[in-house]
Amino acid sequence: MKDKFVTAFAPATVANVGCGFDIMGFALGGNGDKVTISGASGKRSKNILMTGPFGDLIPADRLKNTAGVAVDAYLEATGNTNLNLDIALEKNLPLGSGMGSSASSAAAAVFAANEFLGNQLSTRDLIPFAMEGERVACGTAHADNVAPSLLGGFLLIRSYSPLDIIKVKCPDDLYSAVVHPHIELKTSDARRILKREIPMQDVIRQSANSAAFMVGILTEDYDLIGRSVTDLLAEPKRNQLIPGFDAVRMAAFESGAIGFGISGSGPSVFALCRGEYKATTIAAKIKDAFLGYGLNSDSLVSGLNSPGTRLV
Amino acid sequence: MKDKFVTAFAPATVANVGCGFDIMGFALGGNGDKVTISGASGKRSKNILMTGPFGDLIPADRLKNTAGVAVDAYLEATGNTNLNLDIALEKNLPLGSGMGSSASSAAAAVFAANEFLGNQLSTRDLIPFAMEGERVACGTAHADNVAPSLLGGFLLIRSYSPLDIIKVKCPDDLYSAVVHPHIELKTSDARRILKREIPMQDVIRQSANSAAFMVGILTEDYDLIGRSVTDLLAEPKRNQLIPGFDAVRMAAFESGAIGFGISGSGPSVFALCRGEYKATTIAAKIKDAFLGYGLNSDSLVSGLNSPGTRLV
Repeated sequence: MKDKFVTAFAPATVANVGCGFDIMGFALGGNGDKVTISGASGKRSKNILMTGPFGDLIPADRLKNTAGVAVDAYLEATGNTNLNLDIALEKNLPLGSGMGSSASSAAAAVFAANEFLGNQLSTRDLIPFAMEGERVACGTAHADNVAPSLLGGFLLIRSYSPLDIIKVKCPDDLYSAVVHPHIELKTSDARRILKREIPMQDVIRQSANSAAFMVGILTEDYDLIGRSVTDLLAEPKRNQLIPGFDAVRMAAFESGAIGFGISGSGPSVFALCRGEYKATTIAAKIKDAFLGYGLNSDSLVSGLNSPGTRLV
Repeated sequence: MKDKFVTAFAPATVANVGCGFDIMGFALGGNGDKVTISGASGKRSKNILMTGPFGDLIPADRLKNTAGVAVDAYLEATGNTNLNLDIALEKNLPLGSGMGSSASSAAAAVFAANEFLGNQLSTRDLIPFAMEGERVACGTAHADNVAPSLLGGFLLIRSYSPLDIIKVKCPDDLYSAVVHPHIELKTSDARRILKREIPMQDVIRQSANSAAFMVGILTEDYDLIGRSVTDLLAEPKRNQLIPGFDAVRMAAFESGAIGFGISGSGPSVFALCRGEYKATTIAAKIKDAFLGYGLNSDSLVSGLNSPGTRLV
């Protein structure tokens, strides 16, 4: 395999999705990281070759790099620890953005490695190894970014032990407008401020909203989707980490968003919208609102049934 | 209206439905309470006329009777406080059974009163008044029994304030086997033992299960329905109040139940089953298991799209 190489692209993702704290996520069309796996001669390289606009911001050390850790977990599980695979990561997604940057690297890495070795596992079976990449990046091996980045579409993580991940088909006319203001929030910091115990009344409300959100999605009830996307667990704490959050939220609703929330652990936010044109308008309004707080931002408009990781 | 009278029947219900603690419930085919409303001359009677097998077990005093309280809340809201309506309640459902006995009385009562007064409100609009009946019966104005008893079918209570109740169509082949062992559990006692704060990890799991349960229902995925019906909030506490709970649960699964849980606050239990014949078999096995703990029981097999309150 000495001269062969494989390159995979994995999309950015929105995790949490309001009421789906730690259990829901969806793939975005557009930007993502790329990983190239090649067969090297000699002993395994200790470093990842880093390129792309954000390539110099994460550790090249294979044992500290989400792509490296994910690939090595995969090699170990498939009994290929003696194989020398070199990894090149084109880091296109900003770090600490709330758009699943580390998950994208891990997903692309395990997908490319699996392809390189003749697809020994299904894409779904790659999720646990990509989760190991998440563990090194942010401290917890959560699946709500890596699962949609690998599989595409909207995913519900019913259980972590055993891992039980369900793909949920969304209405084709449901779009998200994701806006990333140019500040960085570390997932580990955003986790630290969360409460450890939740009052029963809030548990019931969160549970009701997550159930109702699924009903809204599956019955294409846009009003219900909007009413139920509310989060009681993370947003009430994390919104204070995002400058201008309330104004941005209001701008989204005033311009016709049906729902709004923090993407992942922030600072990116997402608005759910009916139709691509509407989502594009709303994204512009959200960007304007962030600008009112001195923050430049990027936006990304995407349907909720976008594809997952693939070869390029 | 002096000589007119109206009689309504309201079915028993299963509330909580495992993962749907305080937010889900469904109507049962079969047994239920009946309420007759008639126009009396003279001043409003202070007592309810009580009949039926359990008629002598609840207070006849209108102000303490769930049917009386529900009707009076309805009369007040519709500006009919000066009307003299007499109420007769045929109490067919056992008290403290976990099958929505008090909700059935309240639902039949408000439905009959509304019909008697020319249907000033829709059936859905009657829910808050029936909830007032629940408040006097068990201390909290919960909707997960009265909503399915009034509207029929499977209901998801997304929000209590404002009240937001969503009907969810279930697979026609999904059946419940409800078994009522002959002991009484007061809802207020069963509520007292619950925790007030829930660890974040359990909140996430409960939320994931309730969301996944809705996906299972709407995509007719029986395996998923079974995996996700688990309850982490009430069952781990309340199962100790039901003699032989673990053995009964095992009997249900060994005879092919796809899911199992406590009906309402117990002591009744429900098994979810595929097909009516299977449900009938499983009901018999559950009865046998209770008998092993010295408890006689009744059983009721029903689809999950059964009708709600209606005139008789």
